Amino acid sequence: MPEPHIVKSYDDELGRLNDAIARMAGLAETQLTQAIQALVERDDQRAAQVIASDAEVDRFEEMVNEQVARLLALRAPVADDLRVALSALKVAASLERMADYAANAAKRSLVLNQLPPIPALRSLSRMGWLVIELSKEVMDCYLERDADRAMIAWERDQEVDELHSSLFRELLTYMMEDPRNIASCTHLLFIAKNVERIGDLATNIAEMTWYLVNGGGLRRARPKRDTSAYAMPRGDRSQ
Amino acid sequence: MPEPHIVKSYDDELGRLNDAIARMAGLAETQLTQAIQALVERDDQRAAQVIASDAEVDRFEEMVNEQVARLLALRAPVADDLRVALSALKVAASLERMADYAANAAKRSLVLNQLPPIPALRSLSRMGWLVIELSKEVMDCYLERDADRAMIAWERDQEVDELHSSLFRELLTYMMEDPRNIASCTHLLFIAKNVERIGDLATNIAEMTWYLVNGGGLRRARPKRDTSAYAMPRGDRSQ
Repeated sequence: MPEPHIVKSYDDELGRLNDAIARMAGLAETQLTQAIQALVERDDQRAAQVIASDAEVDRFEEMVNEQVARLLALRAPVADDLRVALSALKVAASLERMADYAANAAKRSLVLNQLPPIPALRSLSRMGWLVIELSKEVMDCYLERDADRAMIAWERDQEVDELHSSLFRELLTYMMEDPRNIASCTHLLFIAKNVERIGDLATNIAEMTWYLVNGGGLRRARPKRDTSAYAMPRGDRSQ
Repeated sequence: MPEPHIVKSYDDELGRLNDAIARMAGLAETQLTQAIQALVERDDQRAAQVIASDAEVDRFEEMVNEQVARLLALRAPVADDLRVALSALKVAASLERMADYAANAAKRSLVLNQLPPIPALRSLSRMGWLVIELSKEVMDCYLERDADRAMIAWERDQEVDELHSSLFRELLTYMMEDPRNIASCTHLLFIAKNVERIGDLATNIAEMTWYLVNGGGLRRARPKRDTSAYAMPRGDRSQ
């Protein structure tokens, strides 16, 4: 039987790990929100801020990795606690990639701000807000260990994939209508893809929540509904 | 002091983990190679094969995750052995994403095969073969625990980033020259980005090799030389 003060300190360590994840999630959400706002408001300064803050998200991931490595080495957790440690690694990696995509979108909006605006920005920002909402929701589920609610959020990523597929076709159309739109639309295509990938990463966190609460594998199969990889100019093939 | 047969079985477990990673790497390399060949040879059947085999790579990652979770729970490894376990998780995740990008490229080549060929395919395949070479090299380094050679491969990802930036501009030019190229070039832009991301994932594996041999953080900062996020139509801004 371990000494009471050791158990206490172990719980503290798990609590600190959870705090680090919660703070990292807050920062990643800020990065996503700022990136979408920078894009919609054509705000160079905000975009530059997102690019600059990306390194901070990376440092958070490093911190989580180190906390987990220390926890595993010193505490040798099993069962539930081992899942807390392993899911923390995976969630931190997902958050880091989400923020990475946000920073990439911010870089691209610096270029877009030098070119005439494209109407598709409205669909893109709708998709962006939905992904931010889903990301917040799955992080709340993870931190509250609510696997059932996480699966509801997981399902809603379908809406993101559908918005993305339709936006992809919309952007192709603008490019074909007027070659002067090509540069802008290309960057918008990549931003849209980034946002869609952020949605996928949110579903990864939903899956980690499931794993944390219910055990089983660290990955779950998921149906893939985004059909943009198969998109054709006329839009009548595909699916 | 543990019993000799327990030590033996522990070594077996570490060996099995390494074998699983080696086999997963072999499969991922096959997927990359087949995806580039399917693209270059406009071979639908080969592309379909890559798409179908992606699930097998996912199963390998799941298997590695389970082996690592079991190792941590039953053996509570520390120091070197803990790094073997943690790096295995990260390397398997990188390999899974590499194969994911290969499958996405294969999906896009099914579409490209229905459209007229684009000359940029040559630059893209050059970039593809370089990335495959680098991926094989970093995996050899990881499996042989050769951190110094891994850092040499890490450096060479710069060539990939440079090829990608120039290909990005080349594809934009084709699109502007003739709107009938837009659909093909858009898919080629995404395939090029996928290949560039596979190169980034190879550098992650190089970093994991460094971590495995030398300790330190699970992530290292790296300079980013791909400037395609900043690409402008005229090509005289950027960097």
